[in-house]
Amino acid sequence: MERSTTHFEREIREQPEVLARLVREGRPAATALGERIRRTPPAWVTIAARGTSDNAARYAQYVFGSRNRLSVGLAAPSLFTLYGTPPGLAGSLVVGISQSGQSPDIVAVVAEGRRQGAVTVAITNDPSSPLAAAAEHTLALHAGSEKAVAATKTYSTQLLTVAMLAAAIADDAAAWADIEQVPAAVARAISYAAAGVEEPASRCRYADRFLVLGRGYNYATAFEIALKIKETSYVIAEPYSFADFRHGPAALLETGFPVLLVATKAHEDVLPMLDLLDQRGAEVLAISADPAIAGRARAAIDLPATVPEWLSPIVAIVPGQLFALALALTRGTNPDAPRGLSKVTETR
Amino acid sequence: MERSTTHFEREIREQPEVLARLVREGRPAATALGERIRRTPPAWVTIAARGTSDNAARYAQYVFGSRNRLSVGLAAPSLFTLYGTPPGLAGSLVVGISQSGQSPDIVAVVAEGRRQGAVTVAITNDPSSPLAAAAEHTLALHAGSEKAVAATKTYSTQLLTVAMLAAAIADDAAAWADIEQVPAAVARAISYAAAGVEEPASRCRYADRFLVLGRGYNYATAFEIALKIKETSYVIAEPYSFADFRHGPAALLETGFPVLLVATKAHEDVLPMLDLLDQRGAEVLAISADPAIAGRARAAIDLPATVPEWLSPIVAIVPGQLFALALALTRGTNPDAPRGLSKVTETR
Repeated sequence: MERSTTHFEREIREQPEVLARLVREGRPAATALGERIRRTPPAWVTIAARGTSDNAARYAQYVFGSRNRLSVGLAAPSLFTLYGTPPGLAGSLVVGISQSGQSPDIVAVVAEGRRQGAVTVAITNDPSSPLAAAAEHTLALHAGSEKAVAATKTYSTQLLTVAMLAAAIADDAAAWADIEQVPAAVARAISYAAAGVEEPASRCRYADRFLVLGRGYNYATAFEIALKIKETSYVIAEPYSFADFRHGPAALLETGFPVLLVATKAHEDVLPMLDLLDQRGAEVLAISADPAIAGRARAAIDLPATVPEWLSPIVAIVPGQLFALALALTRGTNPDAPRGLSKVTETR
Repeated sequence: MERSTTHFEREIREQPEVLARLVREGRPAATALGERIRRTPPAWVTIAARGTSDNAARYAQYVFGSRNRLSVGLAAPSLFTLYGTPPGLAGSLVVGISQSGQSPDIVAVVAEGRRQGAVTVAITNDPSSPLAAAAEHTLALHAGSEKAVAATKTYSTQLLTVAMLAAAIADDAAAWADIEQVPAAVARAISYAAAGVEEPASRCRYADRFLVLGRGYNYATAFEIALKIKETSYVIAEPYSFADFRHGPAALLETGFPVLLVATKAHEDVLPMLDLLDQRGAEVLAISADPAIAGRARAAIDLPATVPEWLSPIVAIVPGQLFALALALTRGTNPDAPRGLSKVTETR
């Protein structure tokens, strides 16, 4: 295929293989850490992350919350750096998530957690990074080198690492069996989406804004799709949960407003949200495994229904990545080198 | 003044008086609750909120973190409602923030916290609401009836209530003295901004997107200004911390991109951010008490420098509210009745 020449596309298509390797090679470290955490369960979890990794943290809030019944808070790194007044972390589990493991603000949160005696974990693609050095435990992404600036395979491997850690903490054999199904589901999602993204992306050639809606586990998916669109096509795209959207931003809706809706499952609030979008004349692109949802949208990208909802974000991000790719190509931007960004971002 | 006829504008201008009343009438309840919390300090804090109230929760993360050294996490209400798998809250302080106190998802988080034995607090303008009934303790906003759908005085009173609770938990007389200065500073901010918002708002008549940047305590301010613009002018406006912005969304920047920058104080990262915005040709409207920052922007709205930074968000939101008002008026929308919204939003 002539077009398949960007790192961004190659790395999207590499995901089934990379995820399968992670399940194989990452399981011993996840299992050992899960045992350690089960021995002295933390009172709560604090996660520090930025950008794409922060979207993995959003997923972790639902996974650790639902499967391990752990309260999760996303850290405010400024408290540790700008203000020098870190909050108490003793008794918690502190997790830093970063592809590069380089950003000083994320390292600072984990280092402070360790100083206070918290159990500390780095989730990173570089086990020799400063973040890994700061943390007592490291879970490597095993994703290989990621060359496109906009993260794809390091995002899906961050999600899977979080899921594996949750399965390990719960010592849940059924969860591990479900995890084994993820790489094949991702492969199927790639083949489903390949056919489905071209026409909607072409139609959105001149769209100057997007809304991306998702909820629950796929709240993170909405955020990550919006970020990919901004990074690779330079179009403003704002993500919301269904509930947050109703508390104000829904005023934005007007005829033709392009809305990506991620709803792998028809929870009770999906049809009312589709009603609202209909009433206001929004143009809906649905990412869903459910024909009842797909049938309500102008266009839909099908998802395989072979993994349970808690693992669906690892699958549902794929059509979002491929839509962002198709949009960038149709707009003539280079998805490998977003203007003004570099692969390692260091913030304080 | 002929124009001063919307509830939205009246409620913005009412804030000095409403905040002064809150300092007077709200102090006994805050002090009592502060003593209660000091007696058995929570291990961490979970806050549930939506929309404007969620922005008050963002402020609370910095205030409780910095002044009380408490880790704060923002709740994912779906875990309590959609999935029925609430995380552990025993040993925590659970705070629900809601103007109306009606939204079932926020009530569900507080009710579950109480069931698990957490100390529970409702911060609401309606002490007879379901949220107040669910919580063991209530802090009332004393804001009077708010008629505009887009919240203004209930936002600033939520922030001040959070600040008062932080002062009470710390039993910090100096903090209380600073709090006493807030209403006068807000009055001064109104008079400064009245002169400063008209020209930039008129110039942005046809702007079809905004970025709003702030960090630390004023991360919340960036989110709330962006929400006011969306609610009252229907223009997409995305808020970011400086650091999150650099981790991806900065790719959006191009010549003429309108950026509102909130920086009450020249922290070390403000000038580098202004450099980045300059390089990319963004059009910057600064909200700042610092002439060195104001001098770098195309237009600036001055802030009084009479309160310390931790209280500055209660002052810095005012020019944002007045900018949103001026933008709505110049665009011909009705800020009192945003399309598709109602004053009480119930989500599950």
